Amino acid sequence: MPEIVLRNVRPWGGPAVDLRMYGGRITSLFPHDDGDPRSLTGAPDTEFIDGRGLLALPGFVNAHAHLDKSWLGLLWVSYGGEATTEGRIRHEREHRDGLGIPSVATTTTLLTKMIAHGTTAFRSHVDVDLGVGLDGIRSVREAVAGIGAPVGLEIVAFPQDGVLRRPGVLDLLDRAAAEGADHIGGLDPASIDRDPVGQLDALFGIADRRRVGVDIHLHDGGELGAFQYELIIERTRALGMAGRVNVAHGFAIGDVAPARQRALIEAVVDAGITITTVAPVNAPRLLLTELRSAGVVVGLGTDGVRDLWGPYGDGDMLRMATRMAQLAGWRSDADLEAAVRIATSEAAGFVGRSEHDLAVGAAADVVLVDAGNVQEALVEAPARRLVIAGGVIVADCLSSGAVPGE
Amino acid sequence: MPEIVLRNVRPWGGPAVDLRMYGGRITSLFPHDDGDPRSLTGAPDTEFIDGRGLLALPGFVNAHAHLDKSWLGLLWVSYGGEATTEGRIRHEREHRDGLGIPSVATTTTLLTKMIAHGTTAFRSHVDVDLGVGLDGIRSVREAVAGIGAPVGLEIVAFPQDGVLRRPGVLDLLDRAAAEGADHIGGLDPASIDRDPVGQLDALFGIADRRRVGVDIHLHDGGELGAFQYELIIERTRALGMAGRVNVAHGFAIGDVAPARQRALIEAVVDAGITITTVAPVNAPRLLLTELRSAGVVVGLGTDGVRDLWGPYGDGDMLRMATRMAQLAGWRSDADLEAAVRIATSEAAGFVGRSEHDLAVGAAADVVLVDAGNVQEALVEAPARRLVIAGGVIVADCLSSGAVPGE
Repeated sequence: MPEIVLRNVRPWGGPAVDLRMYGGRITSLFPHDDGDPRSLTGAPDTEFIDGRGLLALPGFVNAHAHLDKSWLGLLWVSYGGEATTEGRIRHEREHRDGLGIPSVATTTTLLTKMIAHGTTAFRSHVDVDLGVGLDGIRSVREAVAGIGAPVGLEIVAFPQDGVLRRPGVLDLLDRAAAEGADHIGGLDPASIDRDPVGQLDALFGIADRRRVGVDIHLHDGGELGAFQYELIIERTRALGMAGRVNVAHGFAIGDVAPARQRALIEAVVDAGITITTVAPVNAPRLLLTELRSAGVVVGLGTDGVRDLWGPYGDGDMLRMATRMAQLAGWRSDADLEAAVRIATSEAAGFVGRSEHDLAVGAAADVVLVDAGNVQEALVEAPARRLVIAGGVIVADCLSSGAVPGE
Repeated sequence: MPEIVLRNVRPWGGPAVDLRMYGGRITSLFPHDDGDPRSLTGAPDTEFIDGRGLLALPGFVNAHAHLDKSWLGLLWVSYGGEATTEGRIRHEREHRDGLGIPSVATTTTLLTKMIAHGTTAFRSHVDVDLGVGLDGIRSVREAVAGIGAPVGLEIVAFPQDGVLRRPGVLDLLDRAAAEGADHIGGLDPASIDRDPVGQLDALFGIADRRRVGVDIHLHDGGELGAFQYELIIERTRALGMAGRVNVAHGFAIGDVAPARQRALIEAVVDAGITITTVAPVNAPRLLLTELRSAGVVVGLGTDGVRDLWGPYGDGDMLRMATRMAQLAGWRSDADLEAAVRIATSEAAGFVGRSEHDLAVGAAADVVLVDAGNVQEALVEAPARRLVIAGGVIVADCLSSGAVPGE
């Protein structure tokens, strides 16, 4: 991995700098010098790149991916499942084998596209069930390793098909944690497993014993969802797991009476629970403004992309940030920048990093786009011109004019 | 305007054809012939284009644009208005002069971008008020004429600042209609003008006398909005204006009790009223599935793009169609195709055309994208590789690899 000096780029739309990377980290950041690049003291094999004054952002962090289950790259798969969570679970288990899902090949296709769109670190839920066992996790790890760049990856061992209702899944989750999964997942403890206390006690039990995090899909709405928020909060406090528990989706918080919303948000903050959203356009609003002003750390993800749950998704985190900001009704410059920060620098914790920004010491994850300022980058989501992950160039359209991800 | 033969393209994702255009119209459509193009009997100056098997769609129809008010192309304009319709109206009237809005230049910038994204026909609301008079309409007409291709344009003379509350605006609307505006616009007769019957009687009076259409922005929700739907329905019936009245936004229909929704939808169909949406992510749902199955003709538009109402919008109708389909919860192949048809062939009536499709006799408006089928075109919204408007090539990235609109 040679040293890279990325010259004349504007971090967050600010003044132009020269950004030096080595060993996977950002090593220095100086005001841009127009002089001969060779006058910069670099290692003999230093690669100098002309950033042409483009806007630089940290790599995007996809805090809620499903890297194991996309059919992207295969022939079009018509959607045929029922319009319920349960129906989609069944549909997926019936048809995934025929599509070769999960596999290193399908994950690599999705991953390559997402990286070309500028994502450099992922928290991926990966299905763990009686059918695939831990194969999905192995496939995702192998696909990420095959990228040839230090792309960030945290694995959530995700019991998509249920936990208590599928005897044997708890053992699989335990094994996944023992073998290095970073988080134990969960899914609608009430509506899927029909036993919210039972599922949560079991999941938190494994997480506590194995010292891993918990990251639970909670689609259940209204008071049923709010009750499960409370159960999660109680267990997070009891086990001292502040900062290591995440609720994904968590629609209920926008689906109960305003006074109840406020109390729930305060309890979520107090327990140190984070929330991830995939900015769905037809689900109860997440109350992003209220969550942030209360201090809740919110992460953003793509959710599944072209999978047996539905045909949508292009894997572009910047476009997801646009939609999240629109859903929140954000228009001010500060809010538009916040949307990009949620998808980048503020998401460090979702991928096990203490820092994720264009700063000395941080991972050398850099994305260049042609935009005047960060707000324009958000509303326009222009093509990514250069993507660097851990100091390795993973997508380069600076000179060709071609567009990554197309 | 030379004859064009666009070879080897797949209309709606079907088998490859050669598509011949002349005089602004599609003149023939034959199964693709791999032979020497010169063997096709063409005029001496016929231009042969290799469509490389790309997917062909009709040009997009933007049924709800505001071509007069974007600041796209200028330095970034931070949003500073209040979060109400009234606040935004005031904010716009205070600041547009300083930005040179409306003008031929600003409209041309937006128009060029939208055309590069494949839109070939527009129904544009254009502000008509005591400040700008009819200047906006003149600017938009001049900008469209300057494109150098027969781009479709219908003008709605739009009283953005109110009607009855601004004495003199009715006269301006009347003059606009006399001078060729296709429709008289309106805006929340209750909440803005404080006199729903008064505003509607005045607007329908002009429309009836001048033989133009009516196209009313109706943001008012709940029963207040539903009541104004009723007033519009009554007047449409009384004046025999079926097919010439459109409600834009019309949030109320998704914002009242289910039984009331059904009754309203039936009355809308029965009166021959159309509805246009801009697929807003944070407004009451439009009930697209229900509207369509009842037989309501629904049009799609971009709404304003980067204007004093807000910073969002990239002017891409295909991405708007994606969002509309997601909002409607559509996943089946038939529904995904319907979303593209709403944005193209089914929108003929919104721009005064009897037909708008890849068919002999229709306007030669063609868009090429790299997609396997129309469903993939919808979910991916790939770069437009070629755009032809009225038989004139207006965007061509077939060979360069460059991306229009970037």
